[in-house]
Amino acid sequence: MTSKPGRSRSTDLDVAGNGLLNRRALLGRGLMLAGAAGTGAGASLTAAAAEPLAVDPWSLAPGTAIPTYGQPMKYEDKVVRTLTNPKNEPRTSQARTPHHLLNGTITPAGLHFVVSRTGFPDIDPAKHRLAIHGLVKQPLVYDLEALERYPKVSRVHFVECGGNSAPLYNKDPVQANVQAIHGLLSCSEWTGVRLSTLLEETGIDPKAKWLLAEGADGPSMNRSIPMGKALDDAMIALYQNGERIRPEQGYPMRLLVPGYEGNMNVKWLHRIKLIEEPVMAINETLQYTYRVQGPKIWQFFFPMEVKSFLTHPSPGLTLKGGPGIYEISGLAYSGNGRIAKVMVSADGGKSWAQAALDAPVLPKALARFRLPWRWDGQPVVLQSRAWDEAGNMQPTREEMFAERGAPKVNVPVTAFPMGHMNVITSWAVDQKGEVKHVYG
Amino acid sequence: MTSKPGRSRSTDLDVAGNGLLNRRALLGRGLMLAGAAGTGAGASLTAAAAEPLAVDPWSLAPGTAIPTYGQPMKYEDKVVRTLTNPKNEPRTSQARTPHHLLNGTITPAGLHFVVSRTGFPDIDPAKHRLAIHGLVKQPLVYDLEALERYPKVSRVHFVECGGNSAPLYNKDPVQANVQAIHGLLSCSEWTGVRLSTLLEETGIDPKAKWLLAEGADGPSMNRSIPMGKALDDAMIALYQNGERIRPEQGYPMRLLVPGYEGNMNVKWLHRIKLIEEPVMAINETLQYTYRVQGPKIWQFFFPMEVKSFLTHPSPGLTLKGGPGIYEISGLAYSGNGRIAKVMVSADGGKSWAQAALDAPVLPKALARFRLPWRWDGQPVVLQSRAWDEAGNMQPTREEMFAERGAPKVNVPVTAFPMGHMNVITSWAVDQKGEVKHVYG
Repeated sequence: MTSKPGRSRSTDLDVAGNGLLNRRALLGRGLMLAGAAGTGAGASLTAAAAEPLAVDPWSLAPGTAIPTYGQPMKYEDKVVRTLTNPKNEPRTSQARTPHHLLNGTITPAGLHFVVSRTGFPDIDPAKHRLAIHGLVKQPLVYDLEALERYPKVSRVHFVECGGNSAPLYNKDPVQANVQAIHGLLSCSEWTGVRLSTLLEETGIDPKAKWLLAEGADGPSMNRSIPMGKALDDAMIALYQNGERIRPEQGYPMRLLVPGYEGNMNVKWLHRIKLIEEPVMAINETLQYTYRVQGPKIWQFFFPMEVKSFLTHPSPGLTLKGGPGIYEISGLAYSGNGRIAKVMVSADGGKSWAQAALDAPVLPKALARFRLPWRWDGQPVVLQSRAWDEAGNMQPTREEMFAERGAPKVNVPVTAFPMGHMNVITSWAVDQKGEVKHVYG
Repeated sequence: MTSKPGRSRSTDLDVAGNGLLNRRALLGRGLMLAGAAGTGAGASLTAAAAEPLAVDPWSLAPGTAIPTYGQPMKYEDKVVRTLTNPKNEPRTSQARTPHHLLNGTITPAGLHFVVSRTGFPDIDPAKHRLAIHGLVKQPLVYDLEALERYPKVSRVHFVECGGNSAPLYNKDPVQANVQAIHGLLSCSEWTGVRLSTLLEETGIDPKAKWLLAEGADGPSMNRSIPMGKALDDAMIALYQNGERIRPEQGYPMRLLVPGYEGNMNVKWLHRIKLIEEPVMAINETLQYTYRVQGPKIWQFFFPMEVKSFLTHPSPGLTLKGGPGIYEISGLAYSGNGRIAKVMVSADGGKSWAQAALDAPVLPKALARFRLPWRWDGQPVVLQSRAWDEAGNMQPTREEMFAERGAPKVNVPVTAFPMGHMNVITSWAVDQKGEVKHVYG
């Protein structure tokens, strides 16, 4: 156990190249690899245990009063969304979730990503109305008090911008962290009224095949939603992670179309019109319509397809402790259902090991995967690849570009000439333990 | 459909007395009961639909800038914890979760309940250490950076104070809302390192049957934890709902012993000592030890037993819309596993109907139950009763007091002469739709 870990070292716990360990390895004996070898987490700190513990100053002072509404600890003031338009100039603003500083699957509401055309509107909940009209038998208008009386449901779902991960379209790997690359993605417990419940009340004219959902924000953000989705799992969401939906998430209500591109989950929802054909809104013609190679375009491409990426390690999270045991962890999700499997590679895709998934794995929700890893201090390339229960596999760059055409230009991180980017992300770890984005 | 709803009215959707409807009733036709009869949610508002929708002022103005860390909408400033010690005087303070204003199962971290002996300490995460010592083979000290490298797990669990619901011990029904009666209960997604993982690294002397867990707060809050629980599902929690654990929840780390009384989930955890016998801490002798009738006391009574209560309707949430359809909803949970079933009564326990449970129903986590209800405008008494998968049934007051002895005095809401109170809660609705606490 005192032998130095070497590149060629392999134990019966190793399940893939460069130190990927059995996902159940460390439940029994694996960690002694770290502790006893003197290179791991525990051992580097054990000396202190022989001394009496210091009495820390905070144990000698009265504490701070408990607030009526709590906030994060002051030392966590770097755990924030990054803003592309902090002065709220008259253009779109994006706020990205810092996935490298979070863990678990729920995104705190204060860190949920935002894409907005003009900040958030100041909607008086007592005056706000939701109208359902068009090809219905009986148009109806609902206020918040009325909706509170309807049967509701709570479900955990991710929301992801159609343009999330667009930096991966760049010809060269963008030097940015997971927040910049994959931060237009978040996950909440949403509570609200099924849209189907309200449509059963208004009645549906058989000619209605689509519905227009429109927000009460200044730009009247609108999208066409296919009737099948409206009657399946669409929801008028009123609560997010237990409390009233946040202002930048659509207060007092938003449409939730689980698994569909973020922009369709219309915020500040005030109108649903049942229609025969899509309205060809700017957000389905100019934006969220994608040119692929040749004469093709992709339009009305709704589900966000199976994806995964590593949050730990990732750029900015240097392996400061040097060689030894680390946890590899990340997020996987699919707009087509549950995640079935996540594989992890530490050798740039030559060999793979199956990661553990935290229970419960829910449909159209973030799943957290984890795998123990023994880093030998040499350069490695870390990747993850996910499969969903519908049988879809996250593509490699080569597989995606064979279909869509390869990128020819470099674009700013905040632009997205194309959407629905879900290729494998690769992080290179160098000998100093620094992590960098590469194309693996 | 235009007949007036009467007390004796019953349709094929009715499954129990006073208008409890089939839990799947409103997925198809049930709501037309409300709409078409002119007394319910939809119909009272339909007139507006014939008119062109007004353009609201917030649709005509630029919005507010997206913040780096979001906050609730300003109109929600009443959705806060109630504080028993807002000036942080040198005594225990309690902050209670406003369950009547929330929905779903996750509690936002800012509204998680708190019981603390001196507010929260200002712990520098870079200097904080967790020591594991006593009857171990190798004492070890962990800092936060080290713990980040260990295999972790995310799980959703409730935490409940052993004294939650104590107002129900009062001889007369306390006139208070669900926040005052049941607000020392919350539920989060917790992420951390299994305690068993660390104990495998330190090794366990076979003589060790208990462990002492101690906080770094001024009072050095400590509790004895049985070794079986430590090796089962106990966790060193580092993250709460995705972000670093909040200051008043134990930043930077707390012990989580899922399902056990809240006080054992030691916050600001800095020391775990493996020992042969419990230390008889003040929190297991003076407090959290309960006198029952005769010569008996209950000590080391750990799991919070099966309980449920209605959050909607509940005191303060008047049925302003008058007779018609409402959703009955509440929370159920058990420290012994999953909730198996929740029954609801609208006639003070004479007849019962089974509520729907939002999926997933997780072990030792809050479950949200729901049932549609047609209120006829007459006085009713609403109740809920839960069963867990271990076969435990939530008791009636009579059943509990037959075992523990009946209460003889009235005590302040904030006192708890007894703990582990889990009897059925009863809410009386009067003809005005006002809701009041009664003993049903």
